[in-house]
Amino acid sequence: MELYFLGTGAGIPSKQRNVSAAALRFFNDQGSTWLFDCGEATQHQILYTPLKLSKIDKIFITHLHGDHIYGLPGVLGSRSFQGTETPLTLFGPKGLKDFVQTSLSVSGTFLRYRLEVVEVEDGAVFKERNTVIKVKKLVHGIPSFGYRIEEENQAGSLQVDKLKALGVPPGPLYGQLKEGKQIQLEDGRFINGKDFLGPCKKGRKIAVLGDTRYTEAAIELAKDVDVLVHEATFGAHEQELAHQYYHSTSVQAAKVAKMAEASSLILTHISSRYGENADRLLNEAKEQFVNTYLAKDLWSYSIQP
Amino acid sequence: MELYFLGTGAGIPSKQRNVSAAALRFFNDQGSTWLFDCGEATQHQILYTPLKLSKIDKIFITHLHGDHIYGLPGVLGSRSFQGTETPLTLFGPKGLKDFVQTSLSVSGTFLRYRLEVVEVEDGAVFKERNTVIKVKKLVHGIPSFGYRIEEENQAGSLQVDKLKALGVPPGPLYGQLKEGKQIQLEDGRFINGKDFLGPCKKGRKIAVLGDTRYTEAAIELAKDVDVLVHEATFGAHEQELAHQYYHSTSVQAAKVAKMAEASSLILTHISSRYGENADRLLNEAKEQFVNTYLAKDLWSYSIQP
Repeated sequence: MELYFLGTGAGIPSKQRNVSAAALRFFNDQGSTWLFDCGEATQHQILYTPLKLSKIDKIFITHLHGDHIYGLPGVLGSRSFQGTETPLTLFGPKGLKDFVQTSLSVSGTFLRYRLEVVEVEDGAVFKERNTVIKVKKLVHGIPSFGYRIEEENQAGSLQVDKLKALGVPPGPLYGQLKEGKQIQLEDGRFINGKDFLGPCKKGRKIAVLGDTRYTEAAIELAKDVDVLVHEATFGAHEQELAHQYYHSTSVQAAKVAKMAEASSLILTHISSRYGENADRLLNEAKEQFVNTYLAKDLWSYSIQP
Repeated sequence: MELYFLGTGAGIPSKQRNVSAAALRFFNDQGSTWLFDCGEATQHQILYTPLKLSKIDKIFITHLHGDHIYGLPGVLGSRSFQGTETPLTLFGPKGLKDFVQTSLSVSGTFLRYRLEVVEVEDGAVFKERNTVIKVKKLVHGIPSFGYRIEEENQAGSLQVDKLKALGVPPGPLYGQLKEGKQIQLEDGRFINGKDFLGPCKKGRKIAVLGDTRYTEAAIELAKDVDVLVHEATFGAHEQELAHQYYHSTSVQAAKVAKMAEASSLILTHISSRYGENADRLLNEAKEQFVNTYLAKDLWSYSIQP
């Protein structure tokens, strides 16, 4: 799967950074894409990526501040305008349904597809095929949530060469062996599937958090994740300002990643005050947590199985 | 005054053309700017012009389709976020207030300035200093309006050189002469201000129309204007399609300009189907009305007094 950053700035758009949005593209059969937040001009940014509106089937909104939702009516409308008929589910805080319904109805927008809006609460858990989505409330001026995406572990692949060497021919038995069952061959031998499975494939774990002060809930959401996407609106020296505006500093984000024993951290939601000097936030964070990246608009990060 | 085109495409944004918005910048003391429609990412486009959100004090919405209004919450919010405290008046069809109020309240956006929303009807007339705004309903799938902006004519400037040659010294008398009054000089001579005024300055007239089929109302709005901004979603050969979707062709726009005896016509709201070939629409229109221009994003047109 690949994580695309569509907007990495805070509050208002600048020439360098658009307002918040990120997309997680799965390399599964459906090629589905999940969007996290949808600031104004997210659909414009998508034009400069390989992403397609038609493939977006879930959108997770962390909180309802304008820089995280004002692109939503446009994405929903254009997805329909382009002819997409597959359903879309939208998750987010209470109030989201009102915003979406009003925007679409006032503008006379009829969607060709089924739109479901799910208003989330602290502790909510959703299951989607082999993926579990966990929701936790963070600490911000308005209700703000973090999402933890957990793929289930998958059994290892069947070691076909090893079976062939033992004279076990391909056929329906392979299916049972792949499930780890014991079977009897025609020649009377018993063999156990578990002895012919490669190493189990660990599911990936990702946490994408909304705007927040430093909080325990963030650490829980990020526990052992492959990637933590955390806001870093301010630099380390602006900790008081960060607290006052319910945001985090780069170093606080790094502390969350460290405490959670995350594998990597991506900083986003960077205040325009840092302009071309945002690397300073990256360097500060790296002192606490080495495997930190600074998101840029249209940058993507690959998450290997 | 100068007319800036911020979005000149139809329906959904493309890399070439954003969705609808145009700005009229006055060169008066206040340097005020009036916005016509506000499609998504209008505030982003403004970043690439000399325009300032703080100077926008009126916004006219022609109709409520998403490609004309989804940028409104962002413009209103960012204008406040940047610290602007001067009031703003928003004009547009019924439903506009609901959209704006819901967007701002759901997102917890508090405006530092007074926002007045005026829902317009066919035939409405507004007066603003020396400018009159006339509203007429056009023909579209949902209520769509056109706006005619009329500056009052201004008296010519006082011919100071001519007065000095006659031995009339600068002073308070000049004010009375500028108003066209007759005065008596200290030496007993009578002189009439009207004889010392240059030619009267004709007020400019501009019509900016929403999406519409070809209609008489458009011609009335555009009567004798210096500039008519008219949609041309389709080319001449797509007249049936234009009718079906309540839009105009380039040639229909040119006919309106011709019938109205406008001085110039600017085509906008160009369907993305024409991509790099939109000049074809321009050429078709020019056959009917020579002084036609094809708007492009970030292009500006100067309107001389």
